Amino acid sequence: MPSDQKLEYILKHAAAIFAEKGYDRASVRDISRATGMSLAGLYYYFRSKEELLYLIQKHAFSTVVEALEKELQTLHDPVERLYFLIYNHLRYFLQNMDQLKVCALEVDTLNGYFYEKVAEVRKRYFEVAQGVVQSILLLHQPSERDARLATLQLFGSINWVYMWYNPKKDGGAREMSQSIVHLFLYGLIPAAGEPSRAGQRAGRRYIAKT
Amino acid sequence: MPSDQKLEYILKHAAAIFAEKGYDRASVRDISRATGMSLAGLYYYFRSKEELLYLIQKHAFSTVVEALEKELQTLHDPVERLYFLIYNHLRYFLQNMDQLKVCALEVDTLNGYFYEKVAEVRKRYFEVAQGVVQSILLLHQPSERDARLATLQLFGSINWVYMWYNPKKDGGAREMSQSIVHLFLYGLIPAAGEPSRAGQRAGRRYIAKT
Repeated sequence: MPSDQKLEYILKHAAAIFAEKGYDRASVRDISRATGMSLAGLYYYFRSKEELLYLIQKHAFSTVVEALEKELQTLHDPVERLYFLIYNHLRYFLQNMDQLKVCALEVDTLNGYFYEKVAEVRKRYFEVAQGVVQSILLLHQPSERDARLATLQLFGSINWVYMWYNPKKDGGAREMSQSIVHLFLYGLIPAAGEPSRAGQRAGRRYIAKT
Repeated sequence: MPSDQKLEYILKHAAAIFAEKGYDRASVRDISRATGMSLAGLYYYFRSKEELLYLIQKHAFSTVVEALEKELQTLHDPVERLYFLIYNHLRYFLQNMDQLKVCALEVDTLNGYFYEKVAEVRKRYFEVAQGVVQSILLLHQPSERDARLATLQLFGSINWVYMWYNPKKDGGAREMSQSIVHLFLYGLIPAAGEPSRAGQRAGRRYIAKT
């Protein structure tokens, strides 16, 4: 297995163990057992349990934000950009729920250099997202505060999924993104003249438009 | 200090310590130091660290859901009920952010009886909230799934606050509730004919209406 694939393999297993046991209770020995790698083999990729937590968080946020930035270069319609922001987040984290848990539950566990580096990527991600929200709001002359609060509420919606996501009830990333875009843009009460919304149908209609 | 006030005092300090250090790293000895109470004095109120975590979560959710159910008996307008649901949650948890953190971050730490009892209260809270959302949706013939997803997104918005809440930027529970109601009901894009929204002004206008 090439070295970067091996690192991904380690991060995936480590995230599963951190998500299940909690960071404090998990040991590098647990990760050795789960991956079938020796401790010496593991320490080639990281120097401490804290560095491993850092690598998981850094990898997750970087993957998501890099895919987002790349795609946004080719998307110009504000609503299409919003949809991609949500879809890109859910597409990744519904497949990597352990990483989402480790990012959300252990956000304050890192210290010093490791914390700062992850905070930089999180900040970059938030700013890109806020820009997407702002470009929709700009059509309606909002205050700056609107974009901040709305973006934070949106992140609440899409991060909280680790608490409740059930593929049988909630569908995949695409369906959920459509529902979330619709609620976020148009709210629970449809605008006068808008056809009444009924879950996915409305989402699909919106997607067909963009 | 009467016994129930003393228990609240203990729970407040214990929540602060669990929120700061994480449940696993915190000890009953830390709580003894923070409260100025002896270990024997503390063990009059709970039998183990796990029971203490249980009491914090049970107390927080019960307080919130009981206040909600009581007030809903007197509120009949669906939008007014939604506003109160959000306001009631934020009013409590913005003042008790440590408890929110301990409820969100240590949700899976409890086991067996303790876990089940808290899960019952959380389920009751979710069902009341979903009923409130449903009563707004009913006007628009939605599928059952709409109410579930919308309610879960709403909880995401109002629980995620522990990650970002800043009183200077975001105002108090009342202002934030107004913003959140507005976004949840009407979305980011105002309906045709609706006056354009600009943060709190729109919120206040809506509150004046109800």
